[in-house]
This record gives sequence, structure tokens and C-alpha cells, in this order.
Amino acid sequence: MGEKVDSIVDHPMFKPHIASVAMTYELAQDPKYYDLMTAESHLTGERINRFTHIHQSTQEIMTKVRMLRLMGQKTGTCFQRCVGFDALNTLYAVTYDMDEKLGTDYHQRFKKYLRRVQGEDLMVAGAMTDTKGDRGRRPHKQDDPDLYLHVVEKRDEGIIVKGAKNHITGAVNSHEIIALPTRAMAEEDKDYAVTFATPVDAEGITLVLGRQTNDTRRLDGEIDPGNTRYAILGGEALIIYDDVFVPRERIFMCGEHAFTGPLVQIFSSHHRVNYGGCKVGVADVVIGATKRIAEVNGVDGAYHIRDKLSEMVHLAETCWACSLTCAHEGLRTPSGACVVDPLLANVVKLNVTRFAYEWMRLAQDIAGGAIITLPSERDYNHPIIGKYMEKYYSTKKDIPTETRIRLFRLIENMAVGAGLPEALHGAGSPATLKIMIERSIDIEEKKALAETIAGIREDKHFQNIWGMDEGEYFKEFRENRRITK
Amino acid sequence: MGEKVDSIVDHPMFKPHIASVAMTYELAQDPKYYDLMTAESHLTGERINRFTHIHQSTQEIMTKVRMLRLMGQKTGTCFQRCVGFDALNTLYAVTYDMDEKLGTDYHQRFKKYLRRVQGEDLMVAGAMTDTKGDRGRRPHKQDDPDLYLHVVEKRDEGIIVKGAKNHITGAVNSHEIIALPTRAMAEEDKDYAVTFATPVDAEGITLVLGRQTNDTRRLDGEIDPGNTRYAILGGEALIIYDDVFVPRERIFMCGEHAFTGPLVQIFSSHHRVNYGGCKVGVADVVIGATKRIAEVNGVDGAYHIRDKLSEMVHLAETCWACSLTCAHEGLRTPSGACVVDPLLANVVKLNVTRFAYEWMRLAQDIAGGAIITLPSERDYNHPIIGKYMEKYYSTKKDIPTETRIRLFRLIENMAVGAGLPEALHGAGSPATLKIMIERSIDIEEKKALAETIAGIREDKHFQNIWGMDEGEYFKEFRENRRITK
Amino acid sequence: MGEKVDSIVDHPMFKPHIASVAMTYELAQDPKYYDLMTAESHLTGERINRFTHIHQSTQEIMTKVRMLRLMGQKTGTCFQRCVGFDALNTLYAVTYDMDEKLGTDYHQRFKKYLRRVQGEDLMVAGAMTDTKGDRGRRPHKQDDPDLYLHVVEKRDEGIIVKGAKNHITGAVNSHEIIALPTRAMAEEDKDYAVTFATPVDAEGITLVLGRQTNDTRRLDGEIDPGNTRYAILGGEALIIYDDVFVPRERIFMCGEHAFTGPLVQIFSSHHRVNYGGCKVGVADVVIGATKRIAEVNGVDGAYHIRDKLSEMVHLAETCWACSLTCAHEGLRTPSGACVVDPLLANVVKLNVTRFAYEWMRLAQDIAGGAIITLPSERDYNHPIIGKYMEKYYSTKKDIPTETRIRLFRLIENMAVGAGLPEALHGAGSPATLKIMIERSIDIEEKKALAETIAGIREDKHFQNIWGMDEGEYFKEFRENRRITK
Amino acid sequence: MGEKVDSIVDHPMFKPHIASVAMTYELAQDPKYYDLMTAESHLTGERINRFTHIHQSTQEIMTKVRMLRLMGQKTGTCFQRCVGFDALNTLYAVTYDMDEKLGTDYHQRFKKYLRRVQGEDLMVAGAMTDTKGDRGRRPHKQDDPDLYLHVVEKRDEGIIVKGAKNHITGAVNSHEIIALPTRAMAEEDKDYAVTFATPVDAEGITLVLGRQTNDTRRLDGEIDPGNTRYAILGGEALIIYDDVFVPRERIFMCGEHAFTGPLVQIFSSHHRVNYGGCKVGVADVVIGATKRIAEVNGVDGAYHIRDKLSEMVHLAETCWACSLTCAHEGLRTPSGACVVDPLLANVVKLNVTRFAYEWMRLAQDIAGGAIITLPSERDYNHPIIGKYMEKYYSTKKDIPTETRIRLFRLIENMAVGAGLPEALHGAGSPATLKIMIERSIDIEEKKALAETIAGIREDKHFQNIWGMDEGEYFKEFRENRRITK
Repeated sequence: MGEKVDSIVDHPMFKPHIASVAMTYELAQDPKYYDLMTAESHLTGERINRFTHIHQSTQEIMTKVRMLRLMGQKTGTCFQRCVGFDALNTLYAVTYDMDEKLGTDYHQRFKKYLRRVQGEDLMVAGAMTDTKGDRGRRPHKQDDPDLYLHVVEKRDEGIIVKGAKNHITGAVNSHEIIALPTRAMAEEDKDYAVTFATPVDAEGITLVLGRQTNDTRRLDGEIDPGNTRYAILGGEALIIYDDVFVPRERIFMCGEHAFTGPLVQIFSSHHRVNYGGCKVGVADVVIGATKRIAEVNGVDGAYHIRDKLSEMVHLAETCWACSLTCAHEGLRTPSGACVVDPLLANVVKLNVTRFAYEWMRLAQDIAGGAIITLPSERDYNHPIIGKYMEKYYSTKKDIPTETRIRLFRLIENMAVGAGLPEALHGAGSPATLKIMIERSIDIEEKKALAETIAGIREDKHFQNIWGMDEGEYFKEFRENRRITK
Repeated sequence: MGEKVDSIVDHPMFKPHIASVAMTYELAQDPKYYDLMTAESHLTGERINRFTHIHQSTQEIMTKVRMLRLMGQKTGTCFQRCVGFDALNTLYAVTYDMDEKLGTDYHQRFKKYLRRVQGEDLMVAGAMTDTKGDRGRRPHKQDDPDLYLHVVEKRDEGIIVKGAKNHITGAVNSHEIIALPTRAMAEEDKDYAVTFATPVDAEGITLVLGRQTNDTRRLDGEIDPGNTRYAILGGEALIIYDDVFVPRERIFMCGEHAFTGPLVQIFSSHHRVNYGGCKVGVADVVIGATKRIAEVNGVDGAYHIRDKLSEMVHLAETCWACSLTCAHEGLRTPSGACVVDPLLANVVKLNVTRFAYEWMRLAQDIAGGAIITLPSERDYNHPIIGKYMEKYYSTKKDIPTETRIRLFRLIENMAVGAGLPEALHGAGSPATLKIMIERSIDIEEKKALAETIAGIREDKHFQNIWGMDEGEYFKEFRENRRITK
Repeated sequence: MGEKVDSIVDHPMFKPHIASVAMTYELAQDPKYYDLMTAESHLTGERINRFTHIHQSTQEIMTKVRMLRLMGQKTGTCFQRCVGFDALNTLYAVTYDMDEKLGTDYHQRFKKYLRRVQGEDLMVAGAMTDTKGDRGRRPHKQDDPDLYLHVVEKRDEGIIVKGAKNHITGAVNSHEIIALPTRAMAEEDKDYAVTFATPVDAEGITLVLGRQTNDTRRLDGEIDPGNTRYAILGGEALIIYDDVFVPRERIFMCGEHAFTGPLVQIFSSHHRVNYGGCKVGVADVVIGATKRIAEVNGVDGAYHIRDKLSEMVHLAETCWACSLTCAHEGLRTPSGACVVDPLLANVVKLNVTRFAYEWMRLAQDIAGGAIITLPSERDYNHPIIGKYMEKYYSTKKDIPTETRIRLFRLIENMAVGAGLPEALHGAGSPATLKIMIERSIDIEEKKALAETIAGIREDKHFQNIWGMDEGEYFKEFRENRRITK
Repeated sequence: MGEKVDSIVDHPMFKPHIASVAMTYELAQDPKYYDLMTAESHLTGERINRFTHIHQSTQEIMTKVRMLRLMGQKTGTCFQRCVGFDALNTLYAVTYDMDEKLGTDYHQRFKKYLRRVQGEDLMVAGAMTDTKGDRGRRPHKQDDPDLYLHVVEKRDEGIIVKGAKNHITGAVNSHEIIALPTRAMAEEDKDYAVTFATPVDAEGITLVLGRQTNDTRRLDGEIDPGNTRYAILGGEALIIYDDVFVPRERIFMCGEHAFTGPLVQIFSSHHRVNYGGCKVGVADVVIGATKRIAEVNGVDGAYHIRDKLSEMVHLAETCWACSLTCAHEGLRTPSGACVVDPLLANVVKLNVTRFAYEWMRLAQDIAGGAIITLPSERDYNHPIIGKYMEKYYSTKKDIPTETRIRLFRLIENMAVGAGLPEALHGAGSPATLKIMIERSIDIEEKKALAETIAGIREDKHFQNIWGMDEGEYFKEFRENRRITK
């Protein structure tokens, strides 16, 4: 808001984001969540925060999805730490492949960096989306070359980069930022094929916190923000890299444009599967809040209320089920890191872009109009107006009016505002997802199935793409659908 | 916000609402909109603002719907004056029927009141929704009898009323408030069957302005609010009537509970048909903004963008078409005032509760994530950060960055926030609409059609409910579907 | 079915179609439907069947829509006569314009032809859709030039045509067939810009009746077909023109390719608006049947049943309302014939392509699985099996089992099968409709609205508040749109 | 059709069903499908057809789902053998529990029976749905006590049963039929709590094959049926039990009404999860056919075609993912047999009831109107008409017209007709599924999540993060749900 922030931990605009990501540390200390929140580092054998772990099996990716649902349930919002988590897992696999094919030493550098992240339990933001300028033109065709982040100078000891990354979740309260290319780059765009890590306060970096729905409500009291402790989103920021120097050991790709495609695909798949975890956790909260407000309003027995609540559950569980299968059907890359099924990752996210709108619409429907007309907390604290509100917002003797007010505010926070566009655009917008689905399937096999049944061709007993024993399946998957090929 | 407002016209939190309703006065002065915005009073023959007019034909109701679309297009938001407008038309018809059947003199009183409203071109708020307490209990069964507005004392010269009305659009900036019963009342609830008008500043009335999405953005500059001149909603308020005295000539129903049903039905039908006018005008604005941001981003030629824009138009025009037919198929009541088709009024509103979500979702989809992450206007005005924003939010040479920023903010204002729950709950929530649809049709006739074709019964050439010449139609309509019967 | 039919009126495969179209003659004799089913010819002043009438006002187009709903209610299926009806209205307007601009005499020829159609109350099929070959190529680029119907020879006394028309509703039982171009033709395709009428049995014409869902059920008894008297569709046929000679006076366009665009647009608009009439009449029948089977099954009181029935009504009435407004907002062409609003015509049809599936799905849902598993009528007539069926398909003492069986068969007939693809493709498929919607609006005006509110431009007070614009037809349309009201 | 069938294997109306179920035997012989189609019997250690296997792990249930997708891909229709398969698995678990709690010997009897089924690789139909009479009344309250199947006499050596089972898939071509109660039975209905197996030709049993869409097409040639070898559905029949004697060793429940609830729940869960396997296999075929017809028509490059094909894939894969997770999240019952997650089983099926309609609608959309207007195979074989069809249905030189015709017929077979109502009602209709979803979740936990975040209650750190709870079955389920992983 035009003001330089000296200490983000003390600034009331930042506290909610920080409280949310802090939960990733807090729950990791809780013995109850030991299995979900921590993992054994394959590098050191130490028990580490799972948010810094490299998935060693597809079951571990399922565990990640379960952890994200838990986190969504506990915070009711974005906890910001999975972008960096996914970036770590992506770079682990891609740097390995680069070294194998190009003889580079990125994987070793990266493992050293990862060891520190795991050891110090760092919060790492992942910075992928460029500002992009004219969407109709490739990076090197833009009027201003800086509209995508790129290398402007190479030196022996490192590189100088310039550009910006947009909508970066959790950036303002992270320890580290990993910048990744936002799309597959061709030869002409190779200066844009750059991946590296910097501390959040590296020289030349400026972060500008974006505005979000009702952001200044945080300054208006404890009840009005709705989610009393956490935020509505993850504190998205614009990161400006103004001639930032990155030392050699923090560079994980620099010009190898052929690997930007696999990098983007692995990262997006990892990131898309998350939405069937975290958003479903958020949905659990909103379903609970909606049921509770229905009871408080005295309408919980009505058939249409019960039917709508079932619908909300149905939609949320559909997203959940897609995520778990997407993880289960993943494979192990040559690096040892496991990745998810790329087709289903897009299916997960596409469902979230639709169903989140629907379940939030149902929450708004059941809660009623007060979520957008309720007077303020300051009015509630006013000696005269407060008494009027106490009287006129009451419903039943045994339910405190404040309970009802808090539920309205919570539903407003979750169902009305920036949460939905985030569910739409975060990790990939619908049009992108549809195209990836088209690319991920083997349509020739499906045509052969149809032609056989229509009597147009003999059944050639083609290998089917999902079936058989697990071993066969993974072989097939690797050969035919391998995202890194 | 806990603060008493001395002059609402000077307070920045109220200016946008007032600017929006002011447009109903401004456009009425514009010769271009003479036919749409003004009408000839059937009481005086004077040319009056259409917002105070009693519909003399169904074509005039169609004109009202066209006027509302115009108003939506000009303000991009709620202009607050139709609730009172619909209350006037409802009371005109219902007081006439009451007098006819009960020998009361409500209609004369009301006509006198109406003459003043028309003559002075007053802004009248309509106050219908009670605070309702426990939705599972009737008014007189509530723990606190004041949870519905009711008469607490009757005197010769007038009555004393107590209770509150909730979510009242435009109340804070109206001249007059007409209070109406929120539901059909039975004998036991007859103290709640009360309708009357008061000046907005009558003794005993307190208004508390509700909070809405991003309400305090108005204090943050000119660009950040999105809709630079108007609001996101209509300044909904809680109205508390604390032993308010209403003089005899301002009372239009007092205890005649049998007429609360017709009153509610006529009012809701009038009000529901509006949503295919005003919200479609708002949709026109958001469609234009979305097309423009697509051009600015360089993606307007993409098939999926074009397809989504067509979809937005399709959905909006569907609502529009439903409203016009609903008006066209209306009838003239014995009072001379025309009313709309009650079945189609519910159909209109039910479509709006669904399609507004869809067109706003598509606007969010096309606009992109910046609608929820864009830095603030104060950052844009900052000497250093402003330059960064100028650089990194640019797309094409010939398009000023500020244009893009303003478009993002406008779409945020319209598509993200309180506008959608308003489209859902205003004038009736989905469950109510579904029930009214069930009640409005003659299912026996449809069964007879089916049984005839299935060979189960002889065709008895039953009168069909919509068809034939106009005269026949109105007769049928009156006899079979008459809302006031 | 590989067999030449000598007398179609006596053949059991044709009787249901004929019974359905016969209803257009029967109801016209019924005084009850005089206003709906007949009209006054503007050519002769005689009372004629409305299916041969040229619309003299937009109110008359509304009356047409009402007539189509009645016909749908009475037959529960397609009655086949509106394609020719729309062709007559289209040619009346387009031949007038051609003569005005080109000095031809098509309009006089056409009026003479029309006088005979009206006088003899002929059933006229409209033959528009060509077989089209490779959809990716224009007519003259096809491997076989006959894949679109075209002129192969011109003589003084007439022309020779060759090609075929596909999916032609009612063709096998019509008196006359009018062939029209299926798309706008460019200069190179001008041999394909041909419009003419022939008797159904003209030399060189062969008709092949297409197969439809359960078509041979007609041979299996009285109950099994479901719709006891009528059909599931309109007896669609392939018409082959094998060097057919068309005399001069029956030619209404021959090479004037510039008029194919307007012809196609006026025809499609006329035809698309129908679907909110006839299909809604069909929906009335299926809603009645569904309500009745719910009662028979003992589930009509369940909330979800009531809610689904309301939904069916809601969807049907939405299509209905769109059609009426589309007619109401039409205009008078220079010829005097009135046409509908082209934007809303596409909106009507697009809604039908979606909602018909939904209401039929709900009918299937409520009716239950017996609609696809019920034993045959022959089993029901079997001495032993029939008793078992009587016993096991009964539900309540006072309801004959046969009633239940007939309702299942009626719902099967209407909700399961070819009716839905017909609702999808007839009069234009979704992708076409979406493109027409895009073309029919004036997006520049909507952009101006948004920019004004966003503070980017001054309000230019543009005039057209619900508008559209594209090409001459639309321009004229906009300027004249209110003349008929 | 009123006719007694002597040899079903030779009757052309039965061949398609039999060919479809025969594929379950054929593929089990194919080494390529060894892992999918066969399993190791836990009773004998022999390799058996998986359709007779008791699931020993949740991974084996996932394998079942994969097998069902394969079967759907190979037949494009219902292969009828999973109802019996699910009945076997259900009875294995429930008879064990009954013996444990009641000291009966059902489990031993059942294991003996199962051994024979596995050893002889029998086709077992599962007969669950009763004819039900008036749905508003319980079994013992019906006018006719036989409207639900019940015990009419108990003898030492067995029981006599009477009643009927409706819509029974594959019954006419099975070796054995297992009858199960259709709903949870209370004390008063205990005569209806009966489960037993009979040979298909037991004395007193009569089967009446139901009619289905285009059933007699099978008699009209090879191309017209669409699916050249298989059927449109599974040959659903009405089974009448007219005083059938069932010997003791074939009775697996007789009066133990308290176990009907668990039986129905386990069975329905097993059966509902199937639909994300078999219907997705069917979807693979229809997607392939649709892509191929788009190519043949020359429209496969159009964006809207590609987008719709992606949508079809997306919807199918969503159902698939739900089924796999539902299996993965299952548990081992005390009997050793594994069962699926009951919440997700309902989620799977509810998605199928919606998405199958959508993907079939898209198939109809892309294929075009010829799927409902194409002339018959006999016309195609006619010397003159055949040539016309050859000419006018051609699109590109290198594609035989017959290929196009066969594709239209295949899509007609799969997308237009009884397949959709089957997807709707088979294994449970939407209203039932919604209610089961409501019952399967632990809403109290979700409320606690919301209240914690709203600041209304302290976090009680409840444990179950994805949870549910209802009754003993669910409780056990929750406690054990991770044992098999």
C-alpha cells in the first residue's frame, strides 16, 4: 500500500499469512501428525518436515495429499508452502536427467542446496509465473525483454538476472525463493531458460504485496476478518528482480531450454494434484460452517439443505478421490523421485476449477444474505448498536449471537471473494488443463477399440494403457506417457 | 463501523451508493431516455420519473425491464430504487382489493401518498425482510416477539411498531421507507400483518449500514474500488424500529392477514422479474470489460476466449428474454395496475441465481489471476514501485498500463465478491423459487396431456393454460393462475 | 428397409408420422383453436391454416410459437410442418429483396406458388441440409460435386438439378418439397445457390426413410411404441435428386449467391425460435407423464421428486420465455413479412440443446429403471406371463397395471432415444449457435460501457441499450426493431 | 416377446448378451490378461477366473476395477458378470459375521457353494431389486405380500419362496442366480430377509426378457445393431419365483433381518464402485468412435471438437479416479474379504449418473444428426439405393463409406438409448446416493473444524482427517481403514 515494511512479522497485514504457514511447523511438532507431517530424508536419514521431502514412493505422494487436506482443515486457507515443495521435487528429477544427458553438475549442486533446506526446515517460495506482457508473443518477441525473467549477464562466479515474477504465494514471508521458467522455451528463448534460488532479501529483489478481497479487514478487529487467525489467500506478491546476482551454486538450469518442457510438466503435475488435498480441506471447513449455520438458523432439517450439504460433500470427495488416484498411479523417475500421473493431475485441477465454485455457491445459498450485509464488529462493540445487534441477530436461546456472527464472517471469508479465482487460476487455468488432457491420452488406442467393436478392424490385442500388473503398468506408463521423454 | 454519520452525502462510504441512485434522476433528464426513464402519471397526467409510476399495461412493465437494463449498464451495480418502485405497484393493487372486499379506505390513503411520491420524485426504500430469528418457527412463536416487525400498540391517530428489517437496499440514502410483511401471515400472526411508510429519519428509527466486500476500498483511492464512481452493492442496512409511531394516513395494512399472501406474491413477482433487467445490464458491462481485458492481454483471438464470451452473452440474454416474456404475459388487476406472470417471475430469478455465477466465473477465467493479486493504487503512485508496475503490467505499446489496471479492478469489483450472493438471495433464494414454480403450474393439465397420448384417457379437449387469443389467455390466467385469488 | 413402398398412407411404418402431421389439419378445424391454428391470408383475405401463413406482425410470430406448443402437447412428438412453414416465410422476404435489388421476378413467382399452397392447404417439406461430404471443404472443392445439391444444366424452360438433401423431416408424407441452400455460398459456389419447389413425386426424386430408435416397435403392437398414435420423430428421409427438372415458375433463386447468406440467416432464425414452442409442448407431456408415474409408484410426495419436477418445469419455461421474447423483439422486413430477433433465436436453440437433455434425464430418473427393462406387450398378452406381469407390475389397488405399463412406454418413447439428438442438431448444432451469438452482438458498445465505468473513457451516451450489430441485415434489424410494437 | 425360447444360445435375441459375457471367459484364457482376469483362490490356491474371486486386498479391488475397464473396452457394453461377483464377495463377509454373532453355519455353507462356483467357473447372476409395488409402503404393508420376494414356508430340508426380482442383468444366460434382499428389513419384514442361490432353471422359476432400445435390430442385419457382436445392455429380465423350493445348503440368510442393512451396504458399495470401471471402458470406446467420426467427417481439427473430446476424457477419467481411490481406501473385514470405502462408492456412482449423460451428449454432438436418420442396412444392400448411399454418405476418397456408416451405428448404439438410464439407475439412483453420502460422513468433525477457525471453540485436535462415521460398520471401517496399506 505504498509503504515500506520494516518487520513483516510485526505488521498486521502479514500476520495472518505467517500464522498460516506457521501451522506447517506447528503440526510437525505434534506427535499425532508425525506420520503425515514429517518424513525420513533419503539424503540424511533424519526426520524432516515433509514439506522439504523428496517423494520416495507413490504412497508418499498420497501421504502428501493427506497432509495438504489436514493443513486445509486446520487453516481454512492457503498455507503457501507447497509451491516450493513441488519445486524441490521437480528440480530433483530434472537436474538428474540434465546431468545424465548433458554431463552437467546441477544435481549435485541441487542436492547440497536441498540438504540445507531440509536441515534448516526452510520455507521456500516457488516463483514461476512471469508477468508475460502480450500473451500472443513468445518471450524474446515482447516489446520489453524483461517481461519474462531472463539472464542478462553470465560471469564465472554466477549470473545476473532481470525481470519479475507475479502472483507469488508466500513470497513475502519465505526464507528462500526458487525461480523457475513459466513455460517451455525454444532455442530463441534460451536466456529465459533459467532456474535458481535466492534468499528472499537478496540484493536487487523487491517484493510488492498484492491486494486481495477484504485485505484491510485485518485491521478492523478480530471478528470481521472471518478467519480469525489466518488469511483469505497466501499473501501473493509481485517479485521484481532488478539485476540480481545469483552465485553459481544456486543455479540449477541456465540455458538448457530443452529441459524447460519436462520441468514445467513435472512441476505443474505435482502442483495440480495438490488442489484435491488443500482445497478439500478448506471445503471440509466450509461444509462444517455451513451445517452449523443451518442449525443456528433453524433450517438444518429441511430436505433442500440436507441435499445441498450432500452435494458439497460429493463434490469435495470427487476432487479428493482424483488426487489420491493421481498420486497412486504415479511412477518413479530415474532420479528416484516419484511423480504423479500427468493426465489425472489435469483432471484433478479441472474439477477443482468447477466444483469449488459450486460448493462455495451452495455455502452462500445455505448461509443466507447476512454474509454480505452484516454490520461491522465495531458496531457490535458499540454500546447501543451492539445491543440491537445482539437482539436482532439472535435465533435460539441457547445459541450466543456472537457464534452466529462469527459463522457468517467465516463463510464470507471463505466463500465470497478471492478464494474462488485462486481455485480457478492457481496451478493452471481451465484452457491449459483441457489442452494438457488432450495431449496426455493415447487417442489412437481408443479409436482402435471403437473400430474393433464396429467391425471395421480386427482386434489386434493392443496393449492397453492402464491395465495389467503393476510392473507392466509402470513400464507402459514410462514408455508411452512419460512426461519427461 | 461504530460511528454516527452526520451527513451521509458528504461521507465517502456513502457517496458511491448515492451516485448510483442519483443516476435514476440524471438519466430521467436526458431527452435520449425520455421514453424509458419517464412515464405519464395515471393520477395526474404529469410526466413523472418511471421509478414512481404504476404500470398501466404489460408493455409498460416491459419498458421497466428495459429501463433496468439501461441502469445496470450505466452504473454496473445496484441502483436501489426498484424495491420501493415494486412496493408502490404492489400496494396500489392490494389496497384496492382490500377496500373492495373489506370496505377499508387504504387505497385512497395510498393514492394520496403516491401522489406526493410522484410529485416530489422521492427515493423510496422497500423494507421487507425481517430478521426472522429461528427459521423453523412462525413469528408469534419466536422467543423474542420483535424478531418480526409488528404492531405493539394501536391508537386512534396511528400505531406504534417495533422490530427490525434486514438487508434493506438503499435505505440509508432514501427519503421514505415502506415496510411490508416478509411472508404470508396466519390469524395468530396478525399483529405482524402491517404495512406502512415512514420518512427515513422518523423518530425511533436507527439504520446500521452493513459491511460488504472491499467496502473500505472507497477510502483507498480512485482506482482500487474498481467501479470508480459507484458501489459494489446497494448499501444494504439493518433498520431498527424501536417503538416508532406511524400516523394513520401512512398505514396501508394493519391486521388484514389474509392479504399478506397476495401482497407477498405480487411484490416478489414484480421484484423477481427485475433481475433479468438490472443484472443483465451489469452483465453487459462485465462482458465488455472481459472482452477488453482479453484484447489488452493479447488473447482475444483464441477460440476458447471467444467461446466463453459467447457463453456469457448467451446466459445474460436468456435471463433478459425470460424477463421480457414474464412482463408480456402479465395481466391487469382490478385496480388497473398491471402485474407480471408469477410462474415466469420465479423462472427469471432462478436462472439469475445460476447464470450470474457462471458469467462472473467466466469473467474471472478470462481476466486472469491479477484480479486478486494486483498491488494497490498507492503502490502505483509510489515513485519507485509505480515505475516497476508501469513496466511489468504493460502488454502492448499502444495500451496504457493504467487502462489494464483499471480493467482488472473493475472486474474484481463486479465478479469477485458480494455481487453474487446478492444475485442469489435478493428477491428470493433458490429453494423458495423452486417451491413457487411447483405451485404456479397446473400439473393436472399436463397429466391429462400425457394420459391422452399414452392412450389411457380420451382427449377431453381441456383448455390449455397459455394459449389461444390474448383475451382468452387473460381470462384463463385470471381464473386459474390468479395470484390474488 | 430395402423395400419400395407403394402406398405410404397404408404402411404401418408411416402411419405415426402421418397421424402427427394430420393433427395440424384436425386442430385447424376445431373452433377452440381457431385463433391459434388459422390466420387471415394477406394475399386473399381467406382464413387459412396458419402453417401456410406469412407473419404480418411480431404478435403473429408469438402466436405461431403458441401454436407449436399446442401441437407438441397434442402429439408429444414432431409434427413436421414447420420447416416448410419457415421456408415459405423466408422466401417471401428474400425474393422480395432480390427483386428490389436485382430486378428479377422471383417474388411474383413465389406469391403465385404461395397462393396455391395456402388455397390447397398443402404440406410442404423444407429441404435444407446437404450431405456435405468432407466438412472441411467448400461445395465446389468436394471430390464429388454432387455432395451439395446444384444446378447441372440451365434451359429456357427450367433447370436440371442433382444432389441430395439429408435428414429431411416429413418429406415422405409431404405434398411439396422446397429445396434451399444449406449455407452461404460464395461466387465459386454459385451453382449451389439454388432454391426451388417440386412435388414430392417429381421424376428423378427418390426418398429413403431413415431408421430411428425403436422404429419397428410400430409393428409390435399398440402399447410397446409408447406414443400410441404418433411417432418418436418426424420420419426423416434422405432425398436424392437425380437430374430432376424444375420448371421456371418453381425456381426462386438460381445463382444469386449474395442472397444465400440472408436466406440462411432468416430461415435459421425462424426455425430456431420454434424449438421453444414445440419442444416445450413435448416437455409438458413428459412432465405430466413423469408426475403421473411418480403418483403411480407412490413417490410423488418425496421432496426430491417434487424438486425435480419443478426443475423440469423451470427448464421448459425458460425455453418458452426465450421463444416468446425472440418473436416479440422481431421486425417487419420490406416485404411486409415479419422476422424474429436473430440473437435470441440462437439463444433459444442453445438452451434447448442443453435443457431438453436435462429434463429428459430427470424424467428417466423419476420414472425408474422399468423404462428400459419392461417385458413386451406380447408378453403382457400371453396367458401365463401376462398374469405374472399384471401381478408384479401393480402398485396400488386403484391403479390398473396397464396404466403403469403405458406410462413407462410413453416415457421410454419420449425420453430415451432419438428425440434428444434431434433437439441437439435440428435447426443448428451448438457450435454453430455459439458462433452466431458472437456475431449477433455489438461488443464495441459493451466495451464502451465498461470503459466508461472504469474511468477509461467518457460516456458517449450511445443509444442502443440491448443491442447488436453485424452486416446489413442486422443493421436494418436494429433500426426497425420497434416498428411492430 | 410372448414366445418360449428353447435354446437361448441359438436364439438371435440372446446371442449378443452371451457374446458379451463370453468375453469374461475368453480374455481369462489370454496370457496377456492373466494378471487382470484371473486370481489365486484363497480357498484352493488354484488359478480362477477373477469374476469368482474373493478380494484378499484392496489392491485386488483396484485390479477388479481395472479388469472392468478392460471388459468395457472390449465389449462396449455390459458384460453382466459383476452383480454375481459382488454378491459372492458380500455374502462371504456377511455370512462370516452372522456366524460369529449368531452361531449359525451360513459361512461354511457359503464357502462350499463358492468352491463349486470357482471350480466350475460359473456365471452367477445377482438378483436384488424387488418389484416393490407401492414405494411408499414397507414390504409387509403392500396390498400383495409377494411384491417383495419372501419365504412362504419353512421345512427342515429347505424353504419355499415366492415373489419376483426385476431388471436382473444377465439372468437369462447365467448358470446360477443368487437372490438378495433389496433393502434393510425391520423385524416385521423378517420373512423378506432371505438370501439363497438357485440354478437358473430351478422348478418354479420363470424368466421374462425385457425390451430394450432397438432390441430387434439384432434381427435386421450385421451393421444396423451398431455394436456388431455385443448388445446395448445386459439382457435384463424379470425373474418370477413361483413357490420355488430352495434346499438348506443353498440358503445363506433366512430371517436374520439385522444383517440385511450391512448386506445391502456392502453389496451396493461393491457394485457402485464398478461403474467407474466398466462405464469408463465403454467411454473409451465411445471417445475413440467419436474421434474417428470427426476425422471421417473432416472436422477433427476444429477447436470445439478437440475441446469436447477433452471434456469427454476428463469426465471419464474423473469417474475412473474415484473408483480407484474408493478401492484403495477400503478395508479388510473380519472374514478376510476386503471391501471398498462406502462414502466414495456413492461418490463414484453419483458422478457416473451425471457424467455418462454428458459424454454421450458430446458424442451425439460431434457425430451429427445421421446417428438418428441413417437409412437401414437393407437399403445399403439394395442394388439401387445402396449406390446412392455409397455416393452420398462418402466424405473423403480414402475412407470407405461403410466405415462411416458403421461408426454412426456404433455411436447410435452406445449414446442413444437404454445405456444412459442404466447408468442412472443401475446400482442405485441419485436420490439414494445423496442420502448415503449424507450418512457416510462425520459432520460433527467438520463443524468442529469450522468452529475452531471461527474462534468459537478450542481445537480439540480430533484425529480423523478425512472421516466419516455411522453405525458399527462405519466405525469399524474408520478404525481399520489403513490396515491393508
